Amino acid sequence: MRYELYYWSGIQGRGEFVRLALEQAGADYVDVARQPGGEAAMLRLLEGRGLAAAPFAPPFLKAGRLVIAQTANILLYLGARLRLAPKAEAGRLWAHQLQLTIADLVAETHDVHHPIAASLYYRQQKREARRRAAHFTAERLPKYLGYLESVLGRNPAGDRHMVWRALSYVDLSMFQVIAGLRYAFPRAMARLAPGHRRLAALHDRVAQRPRVAAYLASERRLPFNEQGIFRHYPELDA
Amino acid sequence: MRYELYYWSGIQGRGEFVRLALEQAGADYVDVARQPGGEAAMLRLLEGRGLAAAPFAPPFLKAGRLVIAQTANILLYLGARLRLAPKAEAGRLWAHQLQLTIADLVAETHDVHHPIAASLYYRQQKREARRRAAHFTAERLPKYLGYLESVLGRNPAGDRHMVWRALSYVDLSMFQVIAGLRYAFPRAMARLAPGHRRLAALHDRVAQRPRVAAYLASERRLPFNEQGIFRHYPELDA
Repeated sequence: MRYELYYWSGIQGRGEFVRLALEQAGADYVDVARQPGGEAAMLRLLEGRGLAAAPFAPPFLKAGRLVIAQTANILLYLGARLRLAPKAEAGRLWAHQLQLTIADLVAETHDVHHPIAASLYYRQQKREARRRAAHFTAERLPKYLGYLESVLGRNPAGDRHMVWRALSYVDLSMFQVIAGLRYAFPRAMARLAPGHRRLAALHDRVAQRPRVAAYLASERRLPFNEQGIFRHYPELDA
Repeated sequence: MRYELYYWSGIQGRGEFVRLALEQAGADYVDVARQPGGEAAMLRLLEGRGLAAAPFAPPFLKAGRLVIAQTANILLYLGARLRLAPKAEAGRLWAHQLQLTIADLVAETHDVHHPIAASLYYRQQKREARRRAAHFTAERLPKYLGYLESVLGRNPAGDRHMVWRALSYVDLSMFQVIAGLRYAFPRAMARLAPGHRRLAALHDRVAQRPRVAAYLASERRLPFNEQGIFRHYPELDA
């Protein structure tokens, strides 16, 4: 099956969690909005023309007749198919639960630079962003990283993976989050490094997997930038 | 099976979405933290003692040997078991996708009164909350309500339900969101009423279902208050 991924063409954003899973699995997929005319096709689907199950927002995935939205839901669907998650119910739910916790962290990270409204520019909410950033780096970030580090430490199958004995989409997402947080908050992440050594080692192992490494070195991997979720504004990383 | 629900004892919060599903299904469950000693038991599980799969935060559900966290994940698990969601994959994913979109709306609603930090009181971030509220009621709220209204209108099985021909946990959650938004933002919701008549009718039908009505009239239903997600601060509903 050829999967069609629909996501904004200029940012990694939430689409990146899906891209990493498709790339690591060597799946046949097309990143639709980055093709000529693709963004218009995406917007038509978002308007819901001819769809009973229209998505609220990108990313969404077309898989045959299915149109699946919400990042964690897409990964729930792809997980067993791409052998990136357990098939049994307990493991499937556990992987999904971790992915939803990562999604919460991602949303909070985004709102550090947009605490007032997504429709405003960062510079229009800079004062509030600075205040939120101080709480995020002092309270929320260590809380999330400490929890996720403990998940690795407690995995009965060993601390090289988040969910089970093998790579999962949660490991790939964890790589992306660590990479993004280091880009956005290099000082805070350096300060917090002693508390998440296992996550750092996981990040490095994922980056070195041949398919992930090839993807990261390709033009398909967009660079981090100041339009995405993870933005480097030095004043927010004091 | 007797389910054990773990959630903060003084608020409806995210636990309410699970309570409504358990109540509507007539499931055997105990609301652990509202029993004597229950909150301490919940905190022990949150610390992860003896658990490989410890939750990050309440609510979580014990179902036999499973411990499942993240509201939408709990409902994904309960859906087919309580006959509150389709069993087939396409319908299951669609219900879950809608629930995750509702979860995004709930998180944005919470952050209206807490745009800077959950660790601060509302009065410590009142100025920022007022600014965020103006954008929320003018932009985000109509966008979400318009989308969810269109989901009802497009349901091939009719506009009395969100997902399929019968009641689902998404309908129950939709009831809760409409009730909560009306409590928190009565003026904005009155102004937006012409745009979501189907959602309002769904809210009323759900409230009149015998088991839901009995639950709402019972002491098990906590009232809305200013510690939960949906808070009525008149200055945020201008």
